[in-house]
Amino acid sequence: MPARPSTAAELTERLLAGDKRALARAISLVENDDPEGWALVREVYPRTGKATVVGFTGPPGVGKSTLIGALTSGYRRREREVAVLSIDPSSPFTEGALLGDRIRLTEHFLDPGVFIRSMANRGALGGLSEACLQAALLMDASGKDVVLLETVGVGQAEVDIIDHADTVVLALMPGSGDSIQALKAGVMEIPDVIVVNKADHPLTDTMIREIRSVLSLGPAESWRVPIVKTEASRGEGVEELAEAIDSHRAHIESEGTLAQRRRRNLMNEVVALAAGRLRRQLEESIRDDADVRALLDEVVARRIDPSTAATRLLERSTG
Amino acid sequence: MPARPSTAAELTERLLAGDKRALARAISLVENDDPEGWALVREVYPRTGKATVVGFTGPPGVGKSTLIGALTSGYRRREREVAVLSIDPSSPFTEGALLGDRIRLTEHFLDPGVFIRSMANRGALGGLSEACLQAALLMDASGKDVVLLETVGVGQAEVDIIDHADTVVLALMPGSGDSIQALKAGVMEIPDVIVVNKADHPLTDTMIREIRSVLSLGPAESWRVPIVKTEASRGEGVEELAEAIDSHRAHIESEGTLAQRRRRNLMNEVVALAAGRLRRQLEESIRDDADVRALLDEVVARRIDPSTAATRLLERSTG
Repeated sequence: MPARPSTAAELTERLLAGDKRALARAISLVENDDPEGWALVREVYPRTGKATVVGFTGPPGVGKSTLIGALTSGYRRREREVAVLSIDPSSPFTEGALLGDRIRLTEHFLDPGVFIRSMANRGALGGLSEACLQAALLMDASGKDVVLLETVGVGQAEVDIIDHADTVVLALMPGSGDSIQALKAGVMEIPDVIVVNKADHPLTDTMIREIRSVLSLGPAESWRVPIVKTEASRGEGVEELAEAIDSHRAHIESEGTLAQRRRRNLMNEVVALAAGRLRRQLEESIRDDADVRALLDEVVARRIDPSTAATRLLERSTG
Repeated sequence: MPARPSTAAELTERLLAGDKRALARAISLVENDDPEGWALVREVYPRTGKATVVGFTGPPGVGKSTLIGALTSGYRRREREVAVLSIDPSSPFTEGALLGDRIRLTEHFLDPGVFIRSMANRGALGGLSEACLQAALLMDASGKDVVLLETVGVGQAEVDIIDHADTVVLALMPGSGDSIQALKAGVMEIPDVIVVNKADHPLTDTMIREIRSVLSLGPAESWRVPIVKTEASRGEGVEELAEAIDSHRAHIESEGTLAQRRRRNLMNEVVALAAGRLRRQLEESIRDDADVRALLDEVVARRIDPSTAATRLLERSTG
């Protein structure tokens, strides 16, 4: 087992050579907001952009981790290197539920061609989305062919992360009524591929008809969203899902929309990074500040309205 | 019919007297980000804090508008004045779906004791949450006893709005599997009251058992979340729902948590207002800026990494 990398240059070199431990350490650096981590991403950024980035979203319990595990096996059979980044939601309530799910990925833990990591919101204070995207860049730079991002797609932070993918897969199962309603009402964006997992359920075909009717309400696009049936725990339909993902990628490449998407995503990311830093600077500047507490007391007492208080806060922090 | 108010002082006076047209005009001012609107809220803020603010969230299609319409009838029988603020999600896809829903509120349109307004995300550019909270303050100042906020509870913006309520009601129906999974996994916060609408469905009791088992996983609190069955379109269970909302309010008042909640909410609002303004200033400063476009081109070409680009952007906009 190689020694722990001691210098930044050595870490960079080993990361670019695909060393799993170097990648793990580099991600910990960005996760802990260590300046060395940011420097590392800056260093390796020119080597990124080669990986296919696929985002998975969908309500908890539909089996996203199982699907990702099965897809990973397929990619490995084709000798492609895979990285998985799971984004945990923020509640402390969660740990058990999602950890149990993640166990389905354990068969890949010892494979040097697969790298699995999860990131939690806890403590990241608005920096989760930032850290995740940096981690995805590090995975890309370390030579992974495919980067799979997994979120539960509830909070805005998770949606921001998924937006960074080249291809977005929405995972549903029979009974995902709320998600279909959300698609129908237009409050959830139309994904690139839809997978209906646990397709041994008797209501699967009814559900697929429902999804098709929702999709038919949308504007006609050059890409027709495929609906793939899977039973991920038995590996069924997973090959077809991989094909659907590949077809989407081929489609956006041939249409030139891949470059457009990446441009839009990178632009959103730069603005989000900058805005997030401004917000954190603001929050830090007011923490434990007696004047700010006094200002808030005035708001609570209905003597100063929230908007005026916000103006005073900004005057203080920039003045 | 009184003439259109011509001066700010007159508008304020009529708003405080409970004039519906003055309230409508005041809300349009804040919605259009007119400085006169902000000045008005500042003026009337000392007169706010008296209304009970109840937030309704839940997936699209469960019948939130019907529930709100039925609750409104109940409040009117008790001679309480009601304001309803519906927050539309952002997609242009939506219009039809939600508008149809809102029709269930029409019976109240001509009642001078009821004020109904909806606000859309479209074009508000991150300012929706801000405008909604200002609108709620105006409703409160105009003497409404109850302010009902309605959102689909998907995006973070909608959640921020609901967080502003004294009591949060989650509306579900049999088939709301995703929402229950989200509660179970801890990615959706536990509300104060749960209502299961369309309770004539055969699976209602199964669903209620499921909800109870999810709630039993959470920490024991002094408030036990009631689960109310309704058939809002026939008015059934609506009385019980109103009672559950009243009990929750009485509970937080007696425990002293109402003041705590409002303090926390107001503090979050002040910070969100300030952070939102910083973000918009940033976005405006870079729009149509050739240097920024050139910077983004460098990011797309993988020559400058997103984090460094964000740093340069901040240096520009503050330098």
